[in-house]
Amino acid sequence: MTYENDAGLLAPGRAGSPAEAATGDAAFLQAMLDAEAALTRAQVACGLAPAAAGRAVTAAADASRFDVRDLALRARAAGNPVVPLVTDLVAAVEPDARPYVHRGAGSQDVLDTAAMLVSARALAELLDDLARAADAVARLALAHRNTPMAGRTLTQHAVPITFGLKAAGWRALILDARDRLSAVRESLPVQLGGAAGTLAAFDALAPREDDDTAPDRHGPGMALVQAFASELGLAEPLLPWHSLRTPVADLAGALAFTAGALGKPAADVLILSRTEIGEVTEGHGGDSSTMPHKANPVRATLIAAAARRAPGLAATLYGSLAAGDERPAGAWHAEWEPLRELLGLVGGAAHEAAELAGGLRVVPYAMRENLQLTDGLIVSERLAAVFAARIGRERAREVLVNAAVRARAETTDLADVLTDVLDEEPELAGLDLGELTEPARYTGYAGPLTDRALDRG
Amino acid sequence: MTYENDAGLLAPGRAGSPAEAATGDAAFLQAMLDAEAALTRAQVACGLAPAAAGRAVTAAADASRFDVRDLALRARAAGNPVVPLVTDLVAAVEPDARPYVHRGAGSQDVLDTAAMLVSARALAELLDDLARAADAVARLALAHRNTPMAGRTLTQHAVPITFGLKAAGWRALILDARDRLSAVRESLPVQLGGAAGTLAAFDALAPREDDDTAPDRHGPGMALVQAFASELGLAEPLLPWHSLRTPVADLAGALAFTAGALGKPAADVLILSRTEIGEVTEGHGGDSSTMPHKANPVRATLIAAAARRAPGLAATLYGSLAAGDERPAGAWHAEWEPLRELLGLVGGAAHEAAELAGGLRVVPYAMRENLQLTDGLIVSERLAAVFAARIGRERAREVLVNAAVRARAETTDLADVLTDVLDEEPELAGLDLGELTEPARYTGYAGPLTDRALDRG
Amino acid sequence: MTYENDAGLLAPGRAGSPAEAATGDAAFLQAMLDAEAALTRAQVACGLAPAAAGRAVTAAADASRFDVRDLALRARAAGNPVVPLVTDLVAAVEPDARPYVHRGAGSQDVLDTAAMLVSARALAELLDDLARAADAVARLALAHRNTPMAGRTLTQHAVPITFGLKAAGWRALILDARDRLSAVRESLPVQLGGAAGTLAAFDALAPREDDDTAPDRHGPGMALVQAFASELGLAEPLLPWHSLRTPVADLAGALAFTAGALGKPAADVLILSRTEIGEVTEGHGGDSSTMPHKANPVRATLIAAAARRAPGLAATLYGSLAAGDERPAGAWHAEWEPLRELLGLVGGAAHEAAELAGGLRVVPYAMRENLQLTDGLIVSERLAAVFAARIGRERAREVLVNAAVRARAETTDLADVLTDVLDEEPELAGLDLGELTEPARYTGYAGPLTDRALDRG
Amino acid sequence: MTYENDAGLLAPGRAGSPAEAATGDAAFLQAMLDAEAALTRAQVACGLAPAAAGRAVTAAADASRFDVRDLALRARAAGNPVVPLVTDLVAAVEPDARPYVHRGAGSQDVLDTAAMLVSARALAELLDDLARAADAVARLALAHRNTPMAGRTLTQHAVPITFGLKAAGWRALILDARDRLSAVRESLPVQLGGAAGTLAAFDALAPREDDDTAPDRHGPGMALVQAFASELGLAEPLLPWHSLRTPVADLAGALAFTAGALGKPAADVLILSRTEIGEVTEGHGGDSSTMPHKANPVRATLIAAAARRAPGLAATLYGSLAAGDERPAGAWHAEWEPLRELLGLVGGAAHEAAELAGGLRVVPYAMRENLQLTDGLIVSERLAAVFAARIGRERAREVLVNAAVRARAETTDLADVLTDVLDEEPELAGLDLGELTEPARYTGYAGPLTDRALDRG
Repeated sequence: MTYENDAGLLAPGRAGSPAEAATGDAAFLQAMLDAEAALTRAQVACGLAPAAAGRAVTAAADASRFDVRDLALRARAAGNPVVPLVTDLVAAVEPDARPYVHRGAGSQDVLDTAAMLVSARALAELLDDLARAADAVARLALAHRNTPMAGRTLTQHAVPITFGLKAAGWRALILDARDRLSAVRESLPVQLGGAAGTLAAFDALAPREDDDTAPDRHGPGMALVQAFASELGLAEPLLPWHSLRTPVADLAGALAFTAGALGKPAADVLILSRTEIGEVTEGHGGDSSTMPHKANPVRATLIAAAARRAPGLAATLYGSLAAGDERPAGAWHAEWEPLRELLGLVGGAAHEAAELAGGLRVVPYAMRENLQLTDGLIVSERLAAVFAARIGRERAREVLVNAAVRARAETTDLADVLTDVLDEEPELAGLDLGELTEPARYTGYAGPLTDRALDRG
Repeated sequence: MTYENDAGLLAPGRAGSPAEAATGDAAFLQAMLDAEAALTRAQVACGLAPAAAGRAVTAAADASRFDVRDLALRARAAGNPVVPLVTDLVAAVEPDARPYVHRGAGSQDVLDTAAMLVSARALAELLDDLARAADAVARLALAHRNTPMAGRTLTQHAVPITFGLKAAGWRALILDARDRLSAVRESLPVQLGGAAGTLAAFDALAPREDDDTAPDRHGPGMALVQAFASELGLAEPLLPWHSLRTPVADLAGALAFTAGALGKPAADVLILSRTEIGEVTEGHGGDSSTMPHKANPVRATLIAAAARRAPGLAATLYGSLAAGDERPAGAWHAEWEPLRELLGLVGGAAHEAAELAGGLRVVPYAMRENLQLTDGLIVSERLAAVFAARIGRERAREVLVNAAVRARAETTDLADVLTDVLDEEPELAGLDLGELTEPARYTGYAGPLTDRALDRG
Repeated sequence: MTYENDAGLLAPGRAGSPAEAATGDAAFLQAMLDAEAALTRAQVACGLAPAAAGRAVTAAADASRFDVRDLALRARAAGNPVVPLVTDLVAAVEPDARPYVHRGAGSQDVLDTAAMLVSARALAELLDDLARAADAVARLALAHRNTPMAGRTLTQHAVPITFGLKAAGWRALILDARDRLSAVRESLPVQLGGAAGTLAAFDALAPREDDDTAPDRHGPGMALVQAFASELGLAEPLLPWHSLRTPVADLAGALAFTAGALGKPAADVLILSRTEIGEVTEGHGGDSSTMPHKANPVRATLIAAAARRAPGLAATLYGSLAAGDERPAGAWHAEWEPLRELLGLVGGAAHEAAELAGGLRVVPYAMRENLQLTDGLIVSERLAAVFAARIGRERAREVLVNAAVRARAETTDLADVLTDVLDEEPELAGLDLGELTEPARYTGYAGPLTDRALDRG
Repeated sequence: MTYENDAGLLAPGRAGSPAEAATGDAAFLQAMLDAEAALTRAQVACGLAPAAAGRAVTAAADASRFDVRDLALRARAAGNPVVPLVTDLVAAVEPDARPYVHRGAGSQDVLDTAAMLVSARALAELLDDLARAADAVARLALAHRNTPMAGRTLTQHAVPITFGLKAAGWRALILDARDRLSAVRESLPVQLGGAAGTLAAFDALAPREDDDTAPDRHGPGMALVQAFASELGLAEPLLPWHSLRTPVADLAGALAFTAGALGKPAADVLILSRTEIGEVTEGHGGDSSTMPHKANPVRATLIAAAARRAPGLAATLYGSLAAGDERPAGAWHAEWEPLRELLGLVGGAAHEAAELAGGLRVVPYAMRENLQLTDGLIVSERLAAVFAARIGRERAREVLVNAAVRARAETTDLADVLTDVLDEEPELAGLDLGELTEPARYTGYAGPLTDRALDRG
């Protein structure tokens, strides 16, 4: 049965991205089945189930054989989709294998493990796209290491920077995101604890001689967790984490960080591609439906939208840390969709960012022109410092403000006005005004800072 | 093509609910088509298009004839799904009607109007479910107007209340939610402004004689907005609201309110149905996958999860109010999914709440037993007041604390200890301890408050 | 003792504003004392306490006589400041009045009522500032009803608008905020319910003859609530709302709305005052510490910051609706600071907005110049429509795109290129290109829309 | 002038805590002065200023000599407090030293560096309190390694656990928080970039011979950053981070994590100390203002409140990552108060948590009693597994459900009913029902899991 709650119609920033395929219901269902199959195989590996059962469950664990909408509807009764899935999976294997399906596990073991599998798979795609974005941005930084442009603070021209330094900053954020996501990805654990995190049900699987209060007891239960983790390529947790939600909170933080990190270059592109600024354009801007000439910065827009949405989703996940009992009534259930949404949203944004960075057109000519817009005042900080060294801070400021007012009134260049002024201030004689008022000569350490930032691997 | 991003697998609180059907991609697509058809018909009504065009577009505007996944994928280029939809809708009508498809409108006109249509339809379902929930809760309040139970503050027994008063409070919140949602629903406007909110493109549709700066000009553009609203049963806005997002923010607030309002009874049910408390049970609790005896408060759990998620989604929508320009790059795009998500989430929660309230089993016997748990101390406030009137506040407190300590030490009832104490305090002689320590006689104005609250229509 | 946790050092948008004075600890303390005094006076009014007690408590209820820091430190033991405050207030009145201090009330009665008083007072200031802002913006809209400027969508020039229409939109949002805040302000209720919302403690204050289960009983308790509300000028609630948090949630929504509503003009000012755009400037822009020429849009910046913060604070308050029990352990405590913060933050933003709107300098010349930046393409929508009526949609688009490409290549005006083109397209002969490409002649219904919006009272 | 916006009256969870003292306006002012003094000393260290200037500025940089309220009020003009502070600091030093005050720096350099200093100092306190909490919790886990209690899922008894395992889980979360905060603390960088992050102003401080495009240039500017970091004990950043907000976002994530991590034990304490459950009590519960007997779990309540508030504050900070330009207009300003608030809020919660954990009273007797509440059904999972191994899953379930129904009807113990049942099921003969239905014998791997978790350093 086809049921189109979400075919991506309202998610142009996610639709068709690798992250979307990795996080949809089909992918989640497969991950739950992968968890079930791995659990049975882990029991085989620990000598607790026949090898045939492992093979049978693994063969049956194919999402295309299950009806995801039907599972969704039946999930309501128990409040989670694992209960009906186990019913259907039991029915899908031959009778001999049935006792080994889901044996000893709780719903949360399967759902949480599936969430970690989905996260691991989505992060792999996301990290690929981040790597592409970082490479493209590095190329921009290198190519424009010495391209001067206006540095802007509180929307106003401040002092000159270089586009290379700006792009190097974008890369720094992308690498910060990469580092945080990579660390989280490597730590994603399986979940296995049974009904309340004691692994008690696994005791029934093998006779034990030792007393259950013996401090050094490490029976089949704990070995099984290890085997389960090994089957799935996930980490083995120190404790079942049914209500110790570090893995989900870590994902929340790293994903919200990534959305914001990508949101920075997007914010800059949205500013720099304004009609009046025109310093960059998206390579393949979106067509407007009504205006033939208009090339919209669509990718930056969609990334910006993702950056606006991620913090609220992450906040919900952080909120679920404060979870009472051995499984909370609500805090856990409130995680599923926000986590999946964050993965898809940020994954889509990373995909857009890679395209955006790869196709960005930089217009040094416009940067140069805009640098002239304040008639030289963009280097007033430099002049103030040089003048102050000769005539004191207060007097320097006064000279500059007067000159600025005059330049604006006469719609002439600051340098021209200053030529006159300098004649009246003997202490300022001999200064090279051409050099001092050249924006490209006042980019400070933009170059070496860019180099240093690009050295980071 | 079937593409299952979301068949509801992770949304047991929404899957199968009326709100889900009203908010999915299929519903959104139909709403966009409804908006397009209404726009053409409105132009017919204003004498700006031939009647045949209105019929042709209306006939073609059937979501089942469009490929929603394909539209989603093509939406990425322009950043919204209206652009490819218009292309397909133009192709779906005969050549004569084509010039009248989407004429004069912008993408945002169609998407925003569709969002309002979807909201109106989802709110209709939601309000039905709220009405059912309010009725069921009113019945509970009436039936238990005089059922005493422990009032609890900061998790501890405080003084007695009645279950009727508690249920009356639930109803008050549900009616508050209803009032807020109803008000918002009646104000939901169409969107029509063209490329930048001036309706300029509609000037080309009919010659005008008057000067466009005439203060009283109300040409076809503004009449068209009215006709458009009338076709769709939505309100006519005072201004195009492309970047004046009052309607979306109002929805956000009313929906977040509703989620929280439903979250209150859910929170109470989760407390009162604890194994140790047992004062209520969900009629049809969810089965556990591993424990045959366990009946989980699944509905309350799913509502509680919705209440945790709604505020973060609403925050994103409130954040989009601060939208620059005539259409913002990101703030608008960040609204679509959170708005839809909120509608589905809260709609699902209302559906669960109606079921929960309708099926809730109340256990007066358990309430009565729990009232005894503090051995009479639950009425210590009353005793303190009565004693204080006779022996002063400080002395009264002292007498009571001593009696409480003794009662606990002797594991006896406070009333028994006090009988002895009263012999030693002549000023307290003659008090009817049986009456004074009976929890059911210390429920204050619970009855009349319940009545007053139930009188509210 | 002076303890400077917050003298406003990190809150330039709030420091010194009327809202700050209305919401600080001193104001909150006074409001708690006002609530205590009103409670005693209400008991006097109901004949439950001697008039002298009312006078005594009222006289003692002067915040300057209490040590707010000491109260704060002692608040920790009970988890709220009312407990130590009552101790100190009892000590501050003569012995005869002491039994009438806080009689029958719970901590939450006093703290919630104080929060409503503080809210009412802060909203009065806030509404004054909103009125000033709305007036100033109305003047701008009127003055610039016919001032053309570029309409911008997704950061790009779209079609012309007027500054009057933009300012009228700002006003519409401000009035929307006013309406929502006014409605909330009028509904702010006192809180009075005693330990668990049953008003039970007030039963001890006057003998009653009727049975407490009589459905029509309206004894001193409920009259007392009315008298209490009347003393304070707040509304009488239908039920005690200790865990029915509609008033706080309504404040949250209306304040988040207001922050966003003010954030819209702020966002526009930040765009329009960019160095490259220069269409508006704040009258008294902030000085930069390092660059003598730089006039920063400080007010818009501080409002924008408030708009970013308000949604997260409101989300916390919405989250507190889902409060278990008769007083929740945490949800209530989580409201106090976010509510106060929201009031101060949004109040400060309203104050800045009034100043910003009153001092805004509009530069029609720059608007005019910017309209030319796309060499006439800003009216391409109009040309497309006019051409399409003659040569069809596809052909019209083709002609325009070609002309646009040529105009850009030759760095000439679109009108000039089109003059040539029209020679080649006989169907287009006779069009008045001067008129058709004049941005000021393509502002659609901007004028009448502005008028209609300004008519709103 | 004393101005009490916030003396802690509404913050009982923070008032008087070490984190409060470390984060108030007085502390922030001192940190800004520390940054200014360190900047001058760093210039001395680099040979760019006379040693006397370093001494003079350091001597003057004493917060008690500045009027914090006056600075706050004057901050409004420029939008930040650094501008008036520099004016006052210049005035506070002798004329010779004045040119070396704030030389070459921007406001953001000082404010951001101060924020990092305040964070470092607050985190030191916070980590101390976390260490105390972790130690206390470890003691609880060790002492109760074998104390059985009900494991609860979705509010219902599930299977037995031990209190040791629960406490070990609390410790795991606290250590996770510690690890995240420690990592962030070690990476907190100084900020130094000048007006737009190029360090250009520092070029004027020393003549340079090399060309500014030389890739290996590391002149006084970059050395100065290093010296500045060294003076303050903060890290040296790879790039100025005026609009690359990794440090703030990392703080947001780690603090939101910590709030949630502490919120978990708080949530459990709030459940377990319920009147009906009574398995733990806070050592020094808060007194109620009206009920002499009531001991409220005040510490857990205040921690729970902090856990509710932190995610929204962190969301605002994550949102500020998407910052346009070299200094954004609003995103930066929106960080100051939420960051300070988070530090104080979470610092206060950690302080409460240390007290809570240190004073918690555990009641094994109540745990034992509660384990009996389901008449043995809490081990039904075990029975189901053991029976299933003999008579199959379906039949086992049937036997158990029937027995449970009968036990409930007869208000007798499950073990008693089962004794009868076993007579009728020959395959089940010989099972030791006493052992199988003993909750303490079904705690699975709780012991070894606790040991393993406590081994973590």
